Amino acid sequence: MPTPFTFINAAMSIDGKISTRQRRQVRISGDVDFERMDELRASSDAVMVGIGTVLADDPSLTVKSDEKRAKRLANGLDENPVRIVVDSKARIPTDADIFRKGAGKIIIAVSESAAFDRVESLRKKAMVIMIGGDQVDLPELLSILDEMGIHRLMIEGGASLNWGLVKNGLVDEIYSFIGNLIIGGATAPTLIDGDGFGEADMPVCSLIGAEKMEEGVLLKWKLKNA
Amino acid sequence: MPTPFTFINAAMSIDGKISTRQRRQVRISGDVDFERMDELRASSDAVMVGIGTVLADDPSLTVKSDEKRAKRLANGLDENPVRIVVDSKARIPTDADIFRKGAGKIIIAVSESAAFDRVESLRKKAMVIMIGGDQVDLPELLSILDEMGIHRLMIEGGASLNWGLVKNGLVDEIYSFIGNLIIGGATAPTLIDGDGFGEADMPVCSLIGAEKMEEGVLLKWKLKNA
Ligand SMILES: NC(=O)c1ccc[n+]([C@@H]2O[C@H](COP(=O)([O-])OP(=O)(O)OC[C@H]3O[C@@H](n4cnc5c(N)ncnc54)[C@H](OP(=O)(O)O)[C@@H]3O)[C@@H](O)[C@H]2O)c1
Ligand SMILES: NC(=O)c1ccc[n+]([C@@H]2O[C@H](COP(=O)([O-])OP(=O)(O)OC[C@H]3O[C@@H](n4cnc5c(N)ncnc54)[C@H](OP(=O)(O)O)[C@@H]3O)[C@@H](O)[C@H]2O)c1
Repeated sequence: MPTPFTFINAAMSIDGKISTRQRRQVRISGDVDFERMDELRASSDAVMVGIGTVLADDPSLTVKSDEKRAKRLANGLDENPVRIVVDSKARIPTDADIFRKGAGKIIIAVSESAAFDRVESLRKKAMVIMIGGDQVDLPELLSILDEMGIHRLMIEGGASLNWGLVKNGLVDEIYSFIGNLIIGGATAPTLIDGDGFGEADMPVCSLIGAEKMEEGVLLKWKLKNA
Repeated sequence: MPTPFTFINAAMSIDGKISTRQRRQVRISGDVDFERMDELRASSDAVMVGIGTVLADDPSLTVKSDEKRAKRLANGLDENPVRIVVDSKARIPTDADIFRKGAGKIIIAVSESAAFDRVESLRKKAMVIMIGGDQVDLPELLSILDEMGIHRLMIEGGASLNWGLVKNGLVDEIYSFIGNLIIGGATAPTLIDGDGFGEADMPVCSLIGAEKMEEGVLLKWKLKNA
């Protein structure tokens, strides 16, 4: 089944961490990267995060630039791309910033393990897609999104959602900005957490971009056989 | 107290991992990086690893190139730089490759918590430096090494030793080759593990080098205030 062109965009430290061990958000990149991220959002059909990122950072996932939002409207699009949260148990607070800020569609992807009343209260706030038994079935979710017309999907983390997508071969490209900080920590979230691959099944990538940006480096990787 | 110029050299995956979660060694880089690493060894006064790396990988830490070893000899040096293992409890097996391969001095740094008989049997194989109560006191160790004439010290990992050194402000530069693999895993060793820094105390670095090499990128970072 076809799935969208899917890319992960993330900022990490020199040692591969995307936040502190307390899951506190760290400003790893600067204004240039922020602008680049905003352009990626504005040019995507949808942006997706895991519930862990919502609970930790409460992002609104909106396009920040007035010009970029105006341009989307002029092109007959919503101001913001569809904003999607992967949240098996429907744990997202109904006062999360994503519900309070910005216009446009919101999708909460839940699984059959979500409590009925939680799902019902979310339905008042967003479109709910129930797919998967215990956890959200990501391959199925992405093919549903593709059928809905979402062909360019931006993933904004975190560590566990990135793993779920890469493990299932759903990621086409990874853009990682490496900032000039050391975060350290055996338990701090990294670009890709989860169980991890064994020696035989590690995905191999091609480097399709490497440029200095502000105090760090922006790397672009294309997954082979994605 | 003066300490040597100290640099970490490591190879990591796209997501910051230096081995699998089973601590299995992964070939992250290719021949060009191998050659570069050998040259770094040959031009250092000493190379250092943590006991975790010895138990996982059993490296000999010798200079591999015949020419480079010959050049060292011609310069009045030992064939290999001093090889140092940081091993508080003197756990290193007496048949480790480091004892069996290559000529030159070997130092095992232990702490006062090491068992007497283990230390005695190591003394037959290597110079033993006992420094620190429970764990090896790294600042003290590095100043002893400096006094011994070791002014250029290469750190070859792993994740916990790197943390111990960075935390104590003992690292001047970090050279990380980022290979074209995804390893993943919340528990796989990363470039810098340990407790991790809090928001207020993360070391800030300057990017002093960034070049494509083979299928990946070689980054060089200089720690500020190191
Ligand atoms: N620097 C950056 O670029 C950046 C970007 C984003 C986030 N972050 C950081 O990343 C951290 C959050 O990462 P995280 O790993 O805790 O959370 P996450 O990846 O945002 O969300 C993970 C959650 O998604 C849900 N999920 C549902 N179905 C899944 C599936 N099939 N596969 C994987 N996950 C599935 C799981 O919870 P349920 O089963 O309950 O649904 C899982 O715990 C935060 O500290 C945040 O600051 C950093
Ligand atoms: N890709 C690469 O470039 C690369 C390079 C090297 C290693 N690796 C990988 O790294 C992994 C090993 O890393 P690791 O973290 O397990 O082990 P490690 O860093 O090699 O050794 C850590 C051990 O050093 C000892 N130590 C003594 N004093 C210390 C101090 N003050 N601070 C910190 N450590 C101190 C501790 O054991 P005691 O207290 O018992 O002494 C500690 O457990 C392996 O999987 C290996 O393959 C990868």
